[in-house]
Amino acid sequence: MDQHTYVAILAGGVGSRFWPGSREARPKQFLDMLGTGKSLLRLTFERFLPLCPAENIFIVTNEAYHDLVLEHLPELTTENVICEPSRNNTAPCIAYTAFKLAALDPQANFVVAPADHIILKQDVFVETLQKALAFTAENDAIVTVGLQPTRPDTGYGYIHFGESVNGDVRKVQRFTEKPNLQTAIEMIDTGEYLWNGGIFVWRAEYVKQAFETFAPSIYNLFQAGEGLYNTPDEAEFIANEYPKSESISVDYAILERADAVYTIPADLGWSDLGTWASLYEESEKDLNANALIGGKVLLSESDHNLIRMPHGKIAVIRGIQNFMVIDEGDVLLIYPKDKEQEIKQVTAQVKSAFGDTYL
Amino acid sequence: MDQHTYVAILAGGVGSRFWPGSREARPKQFLDMLGTGKSLLRLTFERFLPLCPAENIFIVTNEAYHDLVLEHLPELTTENVICEPSRNNTAPCIAYTAFKLAALDPQANFVVAPADHIILKQDVFVETLQKALAFTAENDAIVTVGLQPTRPDTGYGYIHFGESVNGDVRKVQRFTEKPNLQTAIEMIDTGEYLWNGGIFVWRAEYVKQAFETFAPSIYNLFQAGEGLYNTPDEAEFIANEYPKSESISVDYAILERADAVYTIPADLGWSDLGTWASLYEESEKDLNANALIGGKVLLSESDHNLIRMPHGKIAVIRGIQNFMVIDEGDVLLIYPKDKEQEIKQVTAQVKSAFGDTYL
Repeated sequence: MDQHTYVAILAGGVGSRFWPGSREARPKQFLDMLGTGKSLLRLTFERFLPLCPAENIFIVTNEAYHDLVLEHLPELTTENVICEPSRNNTAPCIAYTAFKLAALDPQANFVVAPADHIILKQDVFVETLQKALAFTAENDAIVTVGLQPTRPDTGYGYIHFGESVNGDVRKVQRFTEKPNLQTAIEMIDTGEYLWNGGIFVWRAEYVKQAFETFAPSIYNLFQAGEGLYNTPDEAEFIANEYPKSESISVDYAILERADAVYTIPADLGWSDLGTWASLYEESEKDLNANALIGGKVLLSESDHNLIRMPHGKIAVIRGIQNFMVIDEGDVLLIYPKDKEQEIKQVTAQVKSAFGDTYL
Repeated sequence: MDQHTYVAILAGGVGSRFWPGSREARPKQFLDMLGTGKSLLRLTFERFLPLCPAENIFIVTNEAYHDLVLEHLPELTTENVICEPSRNNTAPCIAYTAFKLAALDPQANFVVAPADHIILKQDVFVETLQKALAFTAENDAIVTVGLQPTRPDTGYGYIHFGESVNGDVRKVQRFTEKPNLQTAIEMIDTGEYLWNGGIFVWRAEYVKQAFETFAPSIYNLFQAGEGLYNTPDEAEFIANEYPKSESISVDYAILERADAVYTIPADLGWSDLGTWASLYEESEKDLNANALIGGKVLLSESDHNLIRMPHGKIAVIRGIQNFMVIDEGDVLLIYPKDKEQEIKQVTAQVKSAFGDTYL
């Protein structure tokens, strides 16, 4: 473990496509999505422990979730929770983190990763990040982990990689956001494209430089707080200034503009668990292709269902196919699994029928 | 209101066909089956208030439910709760009640009725019982309320009525238990048959006489406690003796053997709410024939379902037909409505898979 290695876990989203599992007051990353007894945030945190000590792991989240983070990660203290006073997408939250880490340790070399993805191949994950960290420690570079695509998904960003510059580290030629299906199929056929899963590695000082060059308004905003980071005055400065920042993703603000962008291709057994259907895909199934998560279920004449019950509750179900049954707190959802893209409309209907209570 | 009028509400059953609504620790009569905010026991109790003061209403139940009864009927005191120390069917519990009431008031004239039925026509109900009570006050007679049959149900007992002896009061010619379908159809076609709904009217002293004549072993058992009823010594006597009683229904023990048995035909809007399907039949439906009980439900592409949700919980359901969805405490049941006769097997499977916890 290198003492200059840090991790920033981005945990500010809501994951509204996982309603009624996810709620505004308890987003997806705080849920035990896999029925393992651990939340996604907890699993993500533990995944990084082979790389650096717990105190080097920072959770970047909305102020509203500060206490929830410490509940899920009791090893951490409030210093490890970086709170955004507003939701302005990933560029400002990563810039803020870089300014804080650079002030803490000018040699800080860090990984940024989402809190709510799953990675089945822990060993490959650690090994890949070690390579990336070794590279960025020595180079002014951004390394993004390039995930081996498993299907022509039109919902992801794709990385076109070029020649190797250092072992597994390859130059990124181009990023392509959410292609159409035909393009996605063609890209995968070339064997030269990877998915961008939002896992980036870089030094804090270099991130600051990159913002200065490619997103100067964000750079200037946070540069004005120089000397305040990690002091009692930081909170007031951030509360006043952060919400003024441009709302833009780090992909658009930096990655697609910078030159020194590299990727390490890796098969991590990755899923962003974007929807209930992807949870179904990633879950173990019974003999009738039912995925049963949490709770205890007595099933008959039922197949290809996703059934998620709270701990200690049982379900007795007969005669349903291709449904999702999500029993979560004050909401029960029984819905065709292949209609899960309607969840956002459903929550709008729920809001209009019953108010905000159930969101 | 006649001061000698009393009511005995039989509330000792479990109603296991209503699992997971009914549980051993909280039987059907303690449930708000109709989503009115009142349990069936509460509705039954209130139904009798026009006939006699609350303190004349006695609840005959299993010892295990003593506290639950007083919770649902806070107007009553422990003196109004008659506890059976064991489940020995209706004959001993009615004999016990008759001995207690006769000791309290030698002119006691009382109604026996189940706690868990529904009666929609309250006015007809009160009027019918007033006629019955007037008749039994003056005569050594058993009057059973004869319910107008609405279908050739093979699950009920039928009353063949004869000539009028006093206005609406008619002599009973014969009882027929659970006929086959052909017989049920024929009986209904004659227009001379009624359903026996277990609502009986009689004087306590005459009930004692009837037991002495037709069920002497039960009579002798309770007669041995003469002088102890409604005293501090009653409880010990009952705890010791009651469980020794024959286990038999009052229909077999008395009604089918006695001569002075009468009926008053009445259309009460009655249902014994014997099963989830009967609850569906009795409930109001939406435009797609869904019965929604309790909770709030957002339904699409769904029809002919029975959906019962706890208060404060919502269900969002799409694409199911002819199902029952019962969300009750630590159990969720999703089952074809026309398979509800399997509920007893289901509870056996639940017991074998998960133990007694959920029964």
